[in-house]
Amino acid sequence: MAKIAPLSGFPEFLPSQRIVEQQVLDTVRSVFELHGFASIEVRAVEPLEHLLRKGEIDKEVYVISRLQAANDGSADSEGATPGRWGLHFDLTVPFARYVLQNAGQLDFPFRRYQIQKAWRGERPQEGRYREFTQADIDIVGRDTLGFHHEVEVALVMSEVLTALPIPPAVIKVNNRKLAEGFFRGVGASDPEAALRALDKLDKVGAEQVARLLVSEAGLASEAAERCLRLAQISGDDEIVVERVRDLGVQHPLLDQGLDELSAVVAGANERRPGVLVADLKIARGLDYYTGTVFETELQGFESLGSICSGGRYDSLASDGKVTYPGVGLSLGVSRLLVPLLAAGYITSSRSVPSCVVVGVADEAERHASEQVAASLRARGISCEVAPSAAKFGKQIRHADRRGIPFVWFIGADGAHSVKDIRSGDQTAADPATWNPPPDDLHPRVTRADGASTTDRTSAPNKEGTS
Amino acid sequence: MAKIAPLSGFPEFLPSQRIVEQQVLDTVRSVFELHGFASIEVRAVEPLEHLLRKGEIDKEVYVISRLQAANDGSADSEGATPGRWGLHFDLTVPFARYVLQNAGQLDFPFRRYQIQKAWRGERPQEGRYREFTQADIDIVGRDTLGFHHEVEVALVMSEVLTALPIPPAVIKVNNRKLAEGFFRGVGASDPEAALRALDKLDKVGAEQVARLLVSEAGLASEAAERCLRLAQISGDDEIVVERVRDLGVQHPLLDQGLDELSAVVAGANERRPGVLVADLKIARGLDYYTGTVFETELQGFESLGSICSGGRYDSLASDGKVTYPGVGLSLGVSRLLVPLLAAGYITSSRSVPSCVVVGVADEAERHASEQVAASLRARGISCEVAPSAAKFGKQIRHADRRGIPFVWFIGADGAHSVKDIRSGDQTAADPATWNPPPDDLHPRVTRADGASTTDRTSAPNKEGTS
Repeated sequence: MAKIAPLSGFPEFLPSQRIVEQQVLDTVRSVFELHGFASIEVRAVEPLEHLLRKGEIDKEVYVISRLQAANDGSADSEGATPGRWGLHFDLTVPFARYVLQNAGQLDFPFRRYQIQKAWRGERPQEGRYREFTQADIDIVGRDTLGFHHEVEVALVMSEVLTALPIPPAVIKVNNRKLAEGFFRGVGASDPEAALRALDKLDKVGAEQVARLLVSEAGLASEAAERCLRLAQISGDDEIVVERVRDLGVQHPLLDQGLDELSAVVAGANERRPGVLVADLKIARGLDYYTGTVFETELQGFESLGSICSGGRYDSLASDGKVTYPGVGLSLGVSRLLVPLLAAGYITSSRSVPSCVVVGVADEAERHASEQVAASLRARGISCEVAPSAAKFGKQIRHADRRGIPFVWFIGADGAHSVKDIRSGDQTAADPATWNPPPDDLHPRVTRADGASTTDRTSAPNKEGTS
Repeated sequence: MAKIAPLSGFPEFLPSQRIVEQQVLDTVRSVFELHGFASIEVRAVEPLEHLLRKGEIDKEVYVISRLQAANDGSADSEGATPGRWGLHFDLTVPFARYVLQNAGQLDFPFRRYQIQKAWRGERPQEGRYREFTQADIDIVGRDTLGFHHEVEVALVMSEVLTALPIPPAVIKVNNRKLAEGFFRGVGASDPEAALRALDKLDKVGAEQVARLLVSEAGLASEAAERCLRLAQISGDDEIVVERVRDLGVQHPLLDQGLDELSAVVAGANERRPGVLVADLKIARGLDYYTGTVFETELQGFESLGSICSGGRYDSLASDGKVTYPGVGLSLGVSRLLVPLLAAGYITSSRSVPSCVVVGVADEAERHASEQVAASLRARGISCEVAPSAAKFGKQIRHADRRGIPFVWFIGADGAHSVKDIRSGDQTAADPATWNPPPDDLHPRVTRADGASTTDRTSAPNKEGTS
C-alpha cells in the first residue's frame, strides 16, 4: 500500500498531542460548568436552506448524500434526499434551531455550552481548517435578556483563556450600534456596506477601504476619512468615548452604542482588570450581531486571526411570535491548538495516561502483575501491565518510549519494588499503599515558557473574591 | 416559522439527558485511562475507496461534496472533489488508516480508545441511528500481539459496563476458528456462507438457516443439523467444550478455536467471575475477525441487539511489509443511551451543572452577588447569579425549575444565608467556607431501580485485589 498522507484541512493529533487537547477541553468545560452553563450537543447535519439563510457562506458548506440514493433512486421517507442536508459550519446556526425546536422544554435564560466539530469546505490555511473544534457559550433569553450577560460571557471566556497553557490573549470589543450610528451620522447611504468595507482594513489597507467607503457606502471622502479615524481608536478607559466624540459625529444610535461599549468595558475591567480593550475597528463581517461584538488576539500569534469571537444578537432565533435574544462567544479550539502544537509551544510529558508499567517476570506469573495493576487502579492510578515477559531492560524501554515514569517489579522472592526510570531510584513498595508524586499521577502539560498545568479536571479560578 | 420536528435517526438530547450522557462518557473514559488506553480522535471523513473496502456496507455511506463544487466546476487541489469522500461508518476503519499513516510515530503494542460519532445512511429504528456515538478500545501490535490481550479487552469493557447506570449486561464470546473448523469438518464447501447463514438465526429461525446451510454452504442436511446444534451451545465452563466434542466433528482449526475459546472464558472468569459466557451462535456477520468474537446483550433490552461488540483481527491493517494484528471492543453509546433515556430508565437530578443560584436583591447590588459566586467557584462549587432582581419567589422558582438545590440570599442588612429549596431550611452561611453536601455538588444520575452514581469523574473499580 502506498504511503498514506494526511488530508489537508482535516488535522489529526498524535496521542501526546491529543492529551494536550483533552486537558485543554477539560479546563474549558470545567470553567463553563463552574459558571452554570449546561452542555448540549447537536447533530452534525442541518437542512441546507437553514444553513444558507445567512447568505454568503453557501460555498463553504459540505452537502451530504447517501451513496446509494443515486443508484437505487429511492426517495427517503425522512427527507434526507441528496443535496438537502449539509454539515453545520458553526455551532450557532444549529443552536438557534435547537432552541426553537425545544423551546417548550428549556428554561430561559438558557445558559449553554457546546464543544463540537464544525466543517467548512474552504481552502485550508494556518488557523483555518475544513474540520475544526469550537467551544461556544451562549446565554439566550425569551423576549428579553439582561445587558449584564454581555459582561458575563466576556469574563467567563477570559477565565478560560487565563487558565489555558497558551500565550496571553486580549479580548477586544466594539459595538454594532456605535458603528452603525457613526456611519449614519456621517451620511452613509448603506451602513452595512461601510461595515463590510471597514472589516477589510487589515487585509487591504486604509487607502483601499477609503475607496470602498466612497464607492460602496456612498460616503463623501471627508466622511470616509472620519470612519478610518474611528477605526484607529482603541483603549480600555473613558478616553475612547472622548476620542469618538472629538470626531464630531452625532446620531442617537451612536450615543447608545457608546454607552453600551463603556458599560461593557468598565463592567468587565472592574472584575478582571485589563480583560477587555475597546477596539473600534472590530466589525465581525457579515455576522448577525446587533450590539456588542468581541474578537480575541493571541499575543505572538496575531496571524491566526481572532481565536475567540462573538457578541450580542437581538434575535438569535424567532418563531414569529417569540424572539430569543442572545449573547455568546466561540473559542476556536483547533485554530488555537493546531498551530501551537505544531510549533511545539505546548507539550505533554507522556503519550499515554499510564503512570506505571507493571513488569512481568515470567508469562506464567502474569496474574501477579495483573493483581498489582488492579490494586493501583482501585486507587485511581493509571497503569498497564507489560505486554510480554521480556528482559527488564526492554520493559523499561517500553515505559521510557511512552514517557511513563514508573516501572513496578516483582522479584523472584515475591518482593515488590518500584523504579522511577528518570532518576533510576528503585524502592520497595506495597501495591495497596504506594502513590506516585501528585505531579506524576496524570500526564503533565507544559508550555514553552516552562509553566505547567497538572490538574486535569479543574481549572484555577483566578477571579477570587476580592 | 413552522414547528421544527426532530430529524429521524439523528438523536439529540435535552440538557438533563445530556448530563447523563456526559457522566456515562466520563466513566467510560476514566476506566479506559485507568487501564492505560490513550485517546485519539480521527477526522470525520475517509476516502470513499477506503470506506468501501469492506464490501456490503457501501449503501450506508454518506458521501460529502462541496455545495459550490458543482457550480464553480473547481477541481480541488486536496483531492476533495465531489463524491470522493465519505463520513466514516465506524471507528475501526479510520483507526486502521491512522495506524498505517502514523506507524513510525506510534509505540506498539498501541493501546488506544476513541469516543466519537459515526454515520450510516441506513433506515433508523430503535437502537440504530444515522448518527451515533461509539466508544472503542483496541490493542494493536506490530507483527505479533499476545493472546492475553483478548482477555484484557473483555475485562476492561466489563468494568465499564458494571460502572455504568445501566441494566446488567452479559458479554458473550465465540471464536471464528472454532466455527470455520466446524463447518469445514462437516464438509462445508463455503464456510463463509455457513457463517453468514448462522448469523441470521435470530432473524429467520432454524428452519430457514438449515435451508441456507444446504443451498449456500453446500452442506448435507445432516451436517446442517449439526451446525444448528453447535449454535445452541452456550455456557461459562468446560462443559461447552465437551458438548462441541460430543457432536463428533474433527478439524485442526476446530481444536485451535476450542482451545482459544476456553482460554478466554477461563482467563476472564478467573478475574471477574461470570463476566464471559461462551455462546456458539455469535457470528459477527461479515466483519473481518479471525479469532475471538464478542457480543453483549443488555438484560431486559435484548431487542436492542448487541450493545458492545468486537473481537480479534490478525490483520487490522497492513502496509504490505508489516502487519498489525489487533483486538478490540466497541461500545454503542447511542444504542445504549437513547432508548434508556427515552424510557426514563436513567435520569439526572438537574438540567444544569449549577449547585447554587445566588440571588440578587437589587440590580444595583449585583456586584455583591457576583462576589459570592466567585468565592463559591474558587472552591469548585458551580453556581449562577440570578438573571434579574426579581421577587425572591421567582428566584427560587428559577432554581426549582432547573433542579438546582440551593439559593443564596444577601439580606438588606448584608447577612448571608443559604436555603435548601427542597426542605425549605435556611441557614446563615459564609461564601468563603460554605459547602453543599457532597451528593449535591454535581448533578446526581439515578437509574430506575434507585441506584445512583454521584462521582462524575472516576468510576468505581470493581475488580479489587483479591
